[in-house]
Amino acid sequence: MIGLDELQLAARNHALPLEILREPITPVGLHYLLIHFDIPAVDAASWRLHVGDRAYSLDELRSRERRTIPVTFECAGNGRALMGDGRAPSQPWLLEAVGTAEWTGTALAPLLHESGIADSSEFVFTGLDAGYQGGVEHAYERSLTRDEALDDDVLLVDEMNGSPLLPQHGYPLRLVVPGWYGMTNVKWLVRIEAQSEPFAGWQQQEAYKIDGVPVTRMLPRSLLVPPGIPDFLTRERFVAAGRVPLTGRAWSGWAPIERVEVSDDGGETWADAELDEPLGAYTWRGWRFVWDAQPGRPELCCRATDAAGNVQPTTAAFNEGGYCNNAVQRIRVTVSR
Amino acid sequence: MIGLDELQLAARNHALPLEILREPITPVGLHYLLIHFDIPAVDAASWRLHVGDRAYSLDELRSRERRTIPVTFECAGNGRALMGDGRAPSQPWLLEAVGTAEWTGTALAPLLHESGIADSSEFVFTGLDAGYQGGVEHAYERSLTRDEALDDDVLLVDEMNGSPLLPQHGYPLRLVVPGWYGMTNVKWLVRIEAQSEPFAGWQQQEAYKIDGVPVTRMLPRSLLVPPGIPDFLTRERFVAAGRVPLTGRAWSGWAPIERVEVSDDGGETWADAELDEPLGAYTWRGWRFVWDAQPGRPELCCRATDAAGNVQPTTAAFNEGGYCNNAVQRIRVTVSR
Repeated sequence: MIGLDELQLAARNHALPLEILREPITPVGLHYLLIHFDIPAVDAASWRLHVGDRAYSLDELRSRERRTIPVTFECAGNGRALMGDGRAPSQPWLLEAVGTAEWTGTALAPLLHESGIADSSEFVFTGLDAGYQGGVEHAYERSLTRDEALDDDVLLVDEMNGSPLLPQHGYPLRLVVPGWYGMTNVKWLVRIEAQSEPFAGWQQQEAYKIDGVPVTRMLPRSLLVPPGIPDFLTRERFVAAGRVPLTGRAWSGWAPIERVEVSDDGGETWADAELDEPLGAYTWRGWRFVWDAQPGRPELCCRATDAAGNVQPTTAAFNEGGYCNNAVQRIRVTVSR
Repeated sequence: MIGLDELQLAARNHALPLEILREPITPVGLHYLLIHFDIPAVDAASWRLHVGDRAYSLDELRSRERRTIPVTFECAGNGRALMGDGRAPSQPWLLEAVGTAEWTGTALAPLLHESGIADSSEFVFTGLDAGYQGGVEHAYERSLTRDEALDDDVLLVDEMNGSPLLPQHGYPLRLVVPGWYGMTNVKWLVRIEAQSEPFAGWQQQEAYKIDGVPVTRMLPRSLLVPPGIPDFLTRERFVAAGRVPLTGRAWSGWAPIERVEVSDDGGETWADAELDEPLGAYTWRGWRFVWDAQPGRPELCCRATDAAGNVQPTTAAFNEGGYCNNAVQRIRVTVSR
């Protein structure tokens, strides 16, 4: 059961409607959102990105070498509401805190070099969003180590799917660290500072940890496009018996997806799905499976395995923060004759 | 407390983040969504709108005389989760199931005349979305009486804020009935049929009624842009003592907004807010108030009155469906010295 505090977070932090998994790139307005505080109102003309002692306007950043990469984002708290009793209250995600966009911007590493701070051991990224969490007033801030920040694929982006970032996605600029959970991709970015000691900010030291160990890359997960038609309230599905084409998507921040399996008996037995061509190194991978649906009320499941050997568990290990619950999805289906 | 069935509805049906009330026209991706079944995938090239015996392509509809009107939509279930125990489970809205867009399309009445069905007593509007609700399989369908449907301001729209409708807002075409609760504005519209007897469809006869009486126009409601900065979990607000400019919006489907009042003692005493110029006949009206915030933990409220004499209640009367709860908004604020 969920209290009103968690419910108002679920109202303002939008999830991906699962049927939209049919789209390889999540359409505008349907990508998940996790906004810790308020969506800031930003005047892009006076906004500057401060990097060490330098300041960059949006035009200056846009005039740099540009890259576009499709990246799947997932919230580290995805699955939290299914983790069971005893967790700390927070955004109560079920399964849908995910989305994929084509992000366009400029690489971070050259900017760190140009600003003379690239030799630092760590960097702190500060957003314009601020408030209280855990009783502490702070702006949203996360850090990356030198190796993490200088990776060629870490970008500062000002466009999403070919359009300027929407306010809710970090307008005018956000960080994108492919493969990591979403908390890393600081929105409404305003400052990057060198840091010589491990960053002690609230979102780094108190949040996003499991038993003291920081959450980093996305664990493998697969999701089905729910087949047939739904019941309004329960979202249970109704299909006619026979051959039912199933599709879905799977991703991992640790290694490419190597295998997706499907079960229609709640995970007792599994069969291999066929994988689509990859969309990119950091993008969910489509998969398909023709299901021979027999009359009854089966439970459909899917599970992903990545090339590093990580497999989705049947049940996720409990942690108080409710992070990284990548247990297999379960969909109840009524199959009629 | 909310169960997992209601939570998964809250995840997929997006609410307006309250700080976005600062915008007169709700930006893309932040307007509320209430989708009964799945978002259909529609091929606009083969799609037709059937009106009686005629069929119209999207190009044909777009070549007709066009109008744009700004209209505020609110879900009839807004406030449901605050209605108290004993209601039927459904989409658990708190306060944020509202949004305003500029809708562009063509008037319905001439199309009904041209199709030779305008003399009918009632019309049924059918969407492409289908599923089960209340144990009954059906496509989403609502009806209007002749007088309601022939109103000059009832439109069939294919654009929202100057762009084609997004899939989640009814692409390629939806009905817009200004002043009514959102269930009336049938999305993914595919058919309009004449009806000689009162329509008995599930969404008309079983849903959207209070003690047997159909829900129609929006009751007055006002909402504050929450001042200061939030706590992540509780969304309670923090401001410094002194003069705090408050703003918000108010609307009613029955008559123009005539008065908005503000209270900082939980509704014991009230003071008048100043109303902005109206944005349109069917659009929420901005208002402002300079609040002299004293240190402590006051409860801010606002309430609207329309020109028909409807006033927001302190507490809404209970009904099992959880409809039309337009009780005043309450925001707890910590004011520091």
